[in-house]
Formats: sequence, C-alpha cells, structure tokens
Amino acid sequence: MGGDFGPQPVVAGALAALHLYPGIEKLYLVGLEKEIHAHLDGLPHDAARVSVVHASEVVGMHDKPVEAVRRKKDSSLSRAVDMVKKGEADAVLSPGNTGALVAAAQIKLRTLPGVERPGLATLFPSHKGRFLILDVGANIEARPQHLRDYGVMGEVYTRQILGCRNPRVGLLSIGTEEMKGNELTLEAFRLLKASQINFTGNVEGHDIFADKVDVIVTDGFSGNVLLKSCEAASRFIAHWLKDELSKNLLRKAGAALAYGAFRAIKKKMNPDEYGGAILLGVNGICIKAHGKASTNAIRAAIRVAADSIEQRVNTQIIEELRLTHEKNNAAQPAPAASA
Amino acid sequence: MGGDFGPQPVVAGALAALHLYPGIEKLYLVGLEKEIHAHLDGLPHDAARVSVVHASEVVGMHDKPVEAVRRKKDSSLSRAVDMVKKGEADAVLSPGNTGALVAAAQIKLRTLPGVERPGLATLFPSHKGRFLILDVGANIEARPQHLRDYGVMGEVYTRQILGCRNPRVGLLSIGTEEMKGNELTLEAFRLLKASQINFTGNVEGHDIFADKVDVIVTDGFSGNVLLKSCEAASRFIAHWLKDELSKNLLRKAGAALAYGAFRAIKKKMNPDEYGGAILLGVNGICIKAHGKASTNAIRAAIRVAADSIEQRVNTQIIEELRLTHEKNNAAQPAPAASA
Repeated sequence: MGGDFGPQPVVAGALAALHLYPGIEKLYLVGLEKEIHAHLDGLPHDAARVSVVHASEVVGMHDKPVEAVRRKKDSSLSRAVDMVKKGEADAVLSPGNTGALVAAAQIKLRTLPGVERPGLATLFPSHKGRFLILDVGANIEARPQHLRDYGVMGEVYTRQILGCRNPRVGLLSIGTEEMKGNELTLEAFRLLKASQINFTGNVEGHDIFADKVDVIVTDGFSGNVLLKSCEAASRFIAHWLKDELSKNLLRKAGAALAYGAFRAIKKKMNPDEYGGAILLGVNGICIKAHGKASTNAIRAAIRVAADSIEQRVNTQIIEELRLTHEKNNAAQPAPAASA
Repeated sequence: MGGDFGPQPVVAGALAALHLYPGIEKLYLVGLEKEIHAHLDGLPHDAARVSVVHASEVVGMHDKPVEAVRRKKDSSLSRAVDMVKKGEADAVLSPGNTGALVAAAQIKLRTLPGVERPGLATLFPSHKGRFLILDVGANIEARPQHLRDYGVMGEVYTRQILGCRNPRVGLLSIGTEEMKGNELTLEAFRLLKASQINFTGNVEGHDIFADKVDVIVTDGFSGNVLLKSCEAASRFIAHWLKDELSKNLLRKAGAALAYGAFRAIKKKMNPDEYGGAILLGVNGICIKAHGKASTNAIRAAIRVAADSIEQRVNTQIIEELRLTHEKNNAAQPAPAASA
C-alpha cells in the first residue's frame, strides 16, 4: 500500500513472480482488501497460491518510523511483518516507508542469533558488474563489531544470492592505507582482518565503482550519505545533459541519433534493475523494494526473497557469524594478560 | 613541485595571475630552482614581482602527511608554509599532497583564535550555481562544535569571496527533519540553530545539488566520502556514456553532432572550474589546488588567495566565531543550574 504507485505494481509483480517461480508456494497480498481486489481480480491467477490479507491502515512515506510501528498496528506494513513473526510467511517485501519497515522488522522479528544490529544492504552498478553496500541507514551509530558483522553478512549474501564465489569485502574509508580512517573504521579494519572472510582492506570514495570489491561495509550514516549523494549526482548529470542536448537543433538531432545510448545508460542507472534493498540480520527475510518500483522491480525483489529462503541465507549468516565470533574470542588475550 | 604536472602549470598560472591581478605585490615560486627557472625564464614577466625560493626536497603524492612535514624540512611545501608562518607571505598555494599541506598548515601556522580544528572547504557545482562543502577531510573525528564553527567559517567565506549576501548553511544528515542524524549531527544541529548564522537545517544526500543551501557542513570522514564518491560517480557515468556512444555508427554520428553538449558538461564537471580547496581556520591563507590543476586553475586559485587576503577572511572568521561563542556561552545554563 505504501509505495509511490500504490498496490498496482505490487499485485502485478506478485502474479508475475508466481508465474515464473514455481518454488513460491504462496504469496499474501496485505493491505486494503478492496483496493487489492480491484487490481487482482482482473488478472489471471492461480487462486490457490494468492491470498489477500486485509489491513485497514497505511504507513505513509512521511510517517515517523517507530511511531508508525507503534501506532498503526493494523497497517499493511505491520501486518505483513507480523505474518513473518508468526511463521505464517517466510519473507516480507514492501516498497513503502524504509524507516518504518526497518523499525517494524527490528522490533517484531528481532535479530538473528549473534547479530547485534541488522544492516540494510543495496546493490550499486559498477564498471563491469555490481557491488553490495551495507549499511545504508539502518544503524546510524555503528560500532566496529557491527561493521565486521556486516562484512560477514554481505559475504554470505553475495555468495549465496549473487553467485559470487569468493566475495572480496572492503571497508569504506578516506584512503586505501590501513592507517587511514576514523576510530570506528580503524578498529573495524582490525576486526575484519582477523575474521575468516576475504577482507581486502579499505576502499575510498574514488574507487567504489572500480570493481575492486564485491561488498563494501560502512556505518549507516556514511552509507546513507553515499547512496543518496551518488543517486543525486547521477540525476544531476542526466538533467544537465538533457538541458545541454536541447540547446540547439544540431544537438537535438545528435541526441536523437544516439538515443539508444541514453536509453542504455538510463536502464543501467535505474534502481529497478537492482531489486531493492535487503535488511540483513533480522530473524526472517525482509526486502525493501524501491518506492517507485515497477511491476518488473517487484517481481525481481520477490525473486530475491525466494532465493534468500531457498539458499538459507539466514542459517548461513548465523553459522558464519558463529565462526567469526569464535575466531575473534580465541584471538583476544585474556583480560588479565592484557592488563 | 608536488602537483601531477610538476612546476609548469604553476609557473604559467602564477605569471597569468600577476598580469591580471595588480593587487598582488609579489609571488614566490618555491621549489627546485633549476626546474622553476627552466619554465620561468622563457616567459615574459616582471622580475620585481616574482622571486624563486629554492627548496631541495619534494613531497610526493604517496608520502605520509605528518611524516612528510617532519622529515622533509626542505620541501617546497614546507618552505612555502614556513614563509607564511614567518610573515614573509600572506598565503600559500599548492597542487601537491593534500594531507601533507593540511598537516604542514596545522603544525606550522596553527589555528586562528577561537578555532579548534581547521576544515578543508571545496566548491561543488549545483543545478543553478555552486555550493561550498566543508570539511572534506582535514578533521576526521569532528565534534559538534567543530561542525558549528565550520558553519560560521563557511558563511564568512561564501559571503566575502563568493559574494553570497546571506548564505544559507545546511548540515549534512540522513534526513531533513531535525531529529534525523547521529549523535554528532544532532548536537551540531542544536549548536548551529543557536548561532547567529542563517542555518536552514539538515540537508540529505538527495538534495545536495538542489540549490537549497550555499554551505554544507559535515565531518571530515563523511565529507571526504561524499566528495570522492560523487567525483567517482560522475567519472563512471561519463565513461559509461562514452562506451555506449561508441557502440555503433549511428550513435557515433549522433555524438559527433551533439559534441558541444558533452564539452559543456565536461567543462562544468571539471574540478579546475572550482579553483581548488581552502583550508579555513588556520592562521594564514592556505589553498589546495587540484593535483591536475591547469594553468588556468592555478591562476583562479591564486585569485581566491588574493581575494581572501583583500577581503580579510581570517579577521572576519575570528570576529564571527567570537560572536558565536559568546552567544553560545550566554545561552548555556551555569553548571550548577543544570545539575
């Protein structure tokens, strides 16, 4: 209900996913019954695999996250998360208010064993492929061990879902050298280096698109700033280019001839292509689709949810983190010895 | 000496500045005498307004900042900063190692009265103009009062040098609402709001290019990440576009017709257009030109240095900060009352 385009793309995307992925047993469409039926009833579907679950309230894009969860108990967002909590569903997906979805998942689903703070992970395009970056805003006051655990969770996700064999994990910092960074990243560097994952060191802003790593970890403040400012920069350049290309007839003609190139870039930069963000570390699969997600983007995001269940992402995260924490504890000198 | 293209653009830019700005009494070219003369002697210049000052060492782009300052005492960078320290020059400019220049300025020049930490400020293009952002990397562990003081320094700079009448100052955060942010920004918000400057609240990544503010303040870690990742994003998009435009003859023909548009964008995104960065808050004028600065960029950066002296930027910063701190101290309850 809370996405920018209402239930239409969600319903259509859900039916497309059911059609393409027979592994999905059932999809629940949660929200205002009447509105959902208005979109659903006209489309061919297997009634045994779709259920509409009524929820009388809607969380808006401007609702305050924690308040929305506490006050709108019968919102589609809350109800959908509740279904995962009760074991009635394995995954929840929403194109609505990101903060409210993260808050609902944290409050209702809690974290996986060994996870202190969940992290919101999203895909970015890069020169030759793509990379995962987390956290982009779930955990604003991150501590070093959270960043280390994000490295482990990101590694599991890119391995299991993106098919990356030995994911390279980097730490966002202000220089590539080990001693570059702030207190948070310097300690996180040490913890990541001591872990079992393929940690390749610091990544600075200049290198994020250079295919040097598969996963970039950072705190929720820096990650959110990076995500939004890069999106803004790309929109800004596109806008500028459009302006310049329409300044005279010659340029207009040129732009018309080269139209295919602009369309290709637009497609590559379309957040729809990257299936939304996943909240890693909560007890259940929780996917945030883009607010402007198209039918196709919703279908892709449902696929990510289905893959995450099938590939047992959460079980693997628990197992990997257990190893990481054991390794870390074994490496720590006993308190008396360090005194 | 330490810029990517060596002394050539620096010497040529210096002579251009002397020619255009009669207010500049004298320019000292500091570095390897022979190399400087090799560029200088062939060009027409007023010998009374140019002096070559020999320095036997060069700080490289990969030298560690503090070490470079401590060990290479006879580097062009150190010598040039020394001249400001001794009062032999009013401003220092370098296209060399940013970290080393910042370290040399902090160590040798010290901060202005009332300044705890200098901040490196740089200009970004925006939809309709430009904005100043600081700190982009001088102060990695910023405290709230540093961000507030950056607001004051940025306000003075944009007013005095960019001619902005009543500069709007924003705080980089993860949402526009007052309660959005981390511990650092929440407290900085309070301090900025209580100051005499025109503080317009939080600015999130999505809005940085939207001409909502003239100055954006942030900590050196986030600022550095933002600056470098936006530069990377723009290079990345340019690269992609070039690739796509050369994929077939039709697109190549289109690109040739629209060439003027691409050239205009390239010019707008050229860091040369923005005259380098200024280290605000040190006792002297200290300008960092881009490592790849052209003759024209060096000339523009020298102009910024000359304007900063003429407009008494540092005197105004001292005065504005004194007001800010007085206002802040007056607003604080006495310790006993708050207990």
